[in-house]
Amino acid sequence: MTDTTGTLVSSADVNGTAVYGRDGSNVGTIDHLMIDKVSGNVAYAVMGFGGFLGLGEEHMPIPWDALTYDVSAGGFVTDITEAQLTGAPARSENWAGDREWETRTFEYYGIAPYWI
Amino acid sequence: MTDTTGTLVSSADVNGTAVYGRDGSNVGTIDHLMIDKVSGNVAYAVMGFGGFLGLGEEHMPIPWDALTYDVSAGGFVTDITEAQLTGAPARSENWAGDREWETRTFEYYGIAPYWI
Repeated sequence: MTDTTGTLVSSADVNGTAVYGRDGSNVGTIDHLMIDKVSGNVAYAVMGFGGFLGLGEEHMPIPWDALTYDVSAGGFVTDITEAQLTGAPARSENWAGDREWETRTFEYYGIAPYWI
Repeated sequence: MTDTTGTLVSSADVNGTAVYGRDGSNVGTIDHLMIDKVSGNVAYAVMGFGGFLGLGEEHMPIPWDALTYDVSAGGFVTDITEAQLTGAPARSENWAGDREWETRTFEYYGIAPYWI
């Protein structure tokens, strides 16, 4: 059963949603979201990309605001390219609480920080 | 493995987070979130309450802004009471796309609509 309708998506259903580049290529799939508990905004989508049948897949947190939902495509569209993904600041183990890494990452992608 | 640290919570970990009333009583637990794909804001938390060991539990979407995360409690705190929950507008099958039901629900809880 899914609750996903219209413009609302269940957090349980986001897992596996496709992410497309501007040229329509499949960049990756959403694994899960990271939500700012205080503001209620989604801060990151953690996207799996590369690999084959799940083997060798890498997980990369990307700013949620770098994704736009495209109803007709049934997935998210982003300007981020695979080259950008592979060149992104390496994430520390505690990246989600590492404001220094977060600052560099949002600067890298040219997205306004979610925490300001 | 969990990515939940600091003020960020993984959408995969929200499932099962406790919701407490102002008196510290356990009102229910979060089952999943409903996210507005366009704005990236969490619109609803679908909360399970009542029942026993999962039997007879009811699921009720409540406005996300009616919840505050309490780090020391390790869960969400809300002013919504169980009496309010049981008296809330009955949800239609397609509640997540039913703006009329959504309007009545946000009015009922006295929370500003997420879509304006």
